[in-house]
Amino acid sequence: MLYLVGLGLSDETDITVKGLEIVKKAERVYLEAYTSILLVEKEKLEAFYGRPVLVADRELVETGSDDILAGADKTDVAFLVVGDPFGATTHTDLVLRARELGIESKVIPNASIMSGIGCTGLQLYNFGQTVSMVFFTETWKPSSYYDRVKENVELGLHTLVLVDIKVKEQSLENMARGRLVYEPPRYMTVAQCAGQMIETEEERKEGIYGPESLAVGAARVGADTQKLVSGTLKELSEVDMGPPLHSLVLVGRKVHDLEKDYIRQFAVNQETFDASWQKGGYGTMQ
Amino acid sequence: MLYLVGLGLSDETDITVKGLEIVKKAERVYLEAYTSILLVEKEKLEAFYGRPVLVADRELVETGSDDILAGADKTDVAFLVVGDPFGATTHTDLVLRARELGIESKVIPNASIMSGIGCTGLQLYNFGQTVSMVFFTETWKPSSYYDRVKENVELGLHTLVLVDIKVKEQSLENMARGRLVYEPPRYMTVAQCAGQMIETEEERKEGIYGPESLAVGAARVGADTQKLVSGTLKELSEVDMGPPLHSLVLVGRKVHDLEKDYIRQFAVNQETFDASWQKGGYGTMQ
Repeated sequence: MLYLVGLGLSDETDITVKGLEIVKKAERVYLEAYTSILLVEKEKLEAFYGRPVLVADRELVETGSDDILAGADKTDVAFLVVGDPFGATTHTDLVLRARELGIESKVIPNASIMSGIGCTGLQLYNFGQTVSMVFFTETWKPSSYYDRVKENVELGLHTLVLVDIKVKEQSLENMARGRLVYEPPRYMTVAQCAGQMIETEEERKEGIYGPESLAVGAARVGADTQKLVSGTLKELSEVDMGPPLHSLVLVGRKVHDLEKDYIRQFAVNQETFDASWQKGGYGTMQ
Repeated sequence: MLYLVGLGLSDETDITVKGLEIVKKAERVYLEAYTSILLVEKEKLEAFYGRPVLVADRELVETGSDDILAGADKTDVAFLVVGDPFGATTHTDLVLRARELGIESKVIPNASIMSGIGCTGLQLYNFGQTVSMVFFTETWKPSSYYDRVKENVELGLHTLVLVDIKVKEQSLENMARGRLVYEPPRYMTVAQCAGQMIETEEERKEGIYGPESLAVGAARVGADTQKLVSGTLKELSEVDMGPPLHSLVLVGRKVHDLEKDYIRQFAVNQETFDASWQKGGYGTMQ
């Protein structure tokens, strides 16, 4: 059996009791470590599970999936995924491959940022499609996300913006020379994300949102150090929310009073919040 | 401290290790039992926790929240919520009330159907806003959900349809006579939901979807008895997916091949699935 086990959002104790039982009994335990990260080290997971954990990088999952699945028709293999196994990144390809090989699979769900973002007090019912924000470079500033934000904004819906993480990145020089030397991991911040959103609007000029638009920044959702901040995109582009992982929500205009009361609690500045709320016509759309 | 602890989707072992530690130590433990249900009895939870569990019905949460919060400034109170505490039903009002009383609160996230529905293989990125379906009666067939489905369909997005549950319902006669006698709980099925959707389209006639539109039914997500079925709304309106809880996804036309491969696995009928796929122009929208 192939078990895809969700680890939740923050530390080793966010695994479910059911998931932990499976991990303790599985023949091999893999940790998917390229689409998201836990806020704890692999060693801490191993100590908690009392088991060695094999790190599965993108290469192994995409081209070496048969190694992961080896023997899983007779014994149990656990494939651990930060968040939910079918959350922000789906692992349907691994399940389909298992099926081709005659291996059954089972998913152990857990919290995903796609639902955990409800901790902002913004109602999940009122979210439109989710978008991803990649690190802009001097020459590459992809703005296709903007079209989907536009669709949400026009319907008055909130948009969850998932931000880029870069792990096992090679510099161009090291790549050219074939040296397997990796850059330190990089995690986009709420400030960077808000800044890039403003940059795209300045370029596209469709008036979908602007520096005064309201947004919520969320850092380390589910952890003891969880931090939520609301404010204008301009304010959020200057905020320091501490260590990763971060996410951002652009607030839609079809927002309820109860949502307002909740996010106003953690406004950078309640005066500018109220002013932007009024000016932006938030809460006026049904 | 007020802890809002997510229980996940299926049984007592879906609580996280972190959540379980809190429940074992809290002074009082409440179970929110009117917006969703676990697939196990309260007694099983109590045996697993080694603690008594107080059932919090809608009345207690909405008008007796101060009883729940009593003493939580000095001791710990755990408020258990099926799924995620801020998932399909937010409990922001309880947190705001706690704050007014000077009580801190903390959320322990867990799987919610809002992200757990990823088990269908449909990508959460491609979902639009979520809608709710209530039980139609002879005289009351609210169709406001149809407008939101329309917005999703026009953008090619999937729609998660959460279905009604009725617990602690009184018959009109018992209500009139002031008798606190409750009807047996009722849980809407995928078949009923699909049938009502067809009924609304027949009434509204806007051609947003039809009996041939593709959908996925999901029952008991996260449980060992989890069941997924894909097919046309007509087919799903005749399918028996067993015990609760059920959910339905109306498939959007901006659907990828990998999503198709996945949901086609559990089609009621792969021939009609392929025919409807072709005819409906699924996968042709970008």
